[in-house]
Amino acid sequence: MSIEHTVVFRLAHPAGSQAESDFLTAARSALTEIPGVKDFTVRRQVSPKSDLAWQLSMLFADQSAYDAYNAHPLHVEFVTTRWQTEVVAFQEYDFTTVDQPGH
Amino acid sequence: MSIEHTVVFRLAHPAGSQAESDFLTAARSALTEIPGVKDFTVRRQVSPKSDLAWQLSMLFADQSAYDAYNAHPLHVEFVTTRWQTEVVAFQEYDFTTVDQPGH
Repeated sequence: MSIEHTVVFRLAHPAGSQAESDFLTAARSALTEIPGVKDFTVRRQVSPKSDLAWQLSMLFADQSAYDAYNAHPLHVEFVTTRWQTEVVAFQEYDFTTVDQPGH
Repeated sequence: MSIEHTVVFRLAHPAGSQAESDFLTAARSALTEIPGVKDFTVRRQVSPKSDLAWQLSMLFADQSAYDAYNAHPLHVEFVTTRWQTEVVAFQEYDFTTVDQPGH
């Protein structure tokens, strides 16, 4: 079963700054190089009911592809060199589709 | 610009219960009747990094369609008769697409 991996987050950088742009570009560049990452998407979070401002999402064909992504050196490097220093708050969610809700 | 409206939540009902199934069926039945609601989706939230278990998402063509949904009697009735008594925790997020992240 495919899994959509998502993270909603807020950066330390001011909205519209070059540093913000650089982070988003680096995320796409690094993470889409990892095998098994499909449909990589960057979206703005615009509800005033959350103070998080961005979302990254990607699709994995199965848990094995997701596990390989988590352990991949490019992912680990991105987390340690960019994420941990530039992201001030975040929440992960992973979604699987229900064909018939409640059945 | 289209807006994806989402809410991640946890029910008071036990996983796999008839009450859980009834709630999800009622959500789909009521909310998809409202004009402007597109791509209504129910998904399981499976990351252990969140204790929320379900997600509802829907797409609106623009803010006007979203506002009309919020004010629609079917939405208000669902919130007051089902959501407020059966949902124990939730977080809303709304997403808009960025064609070129950082630009």
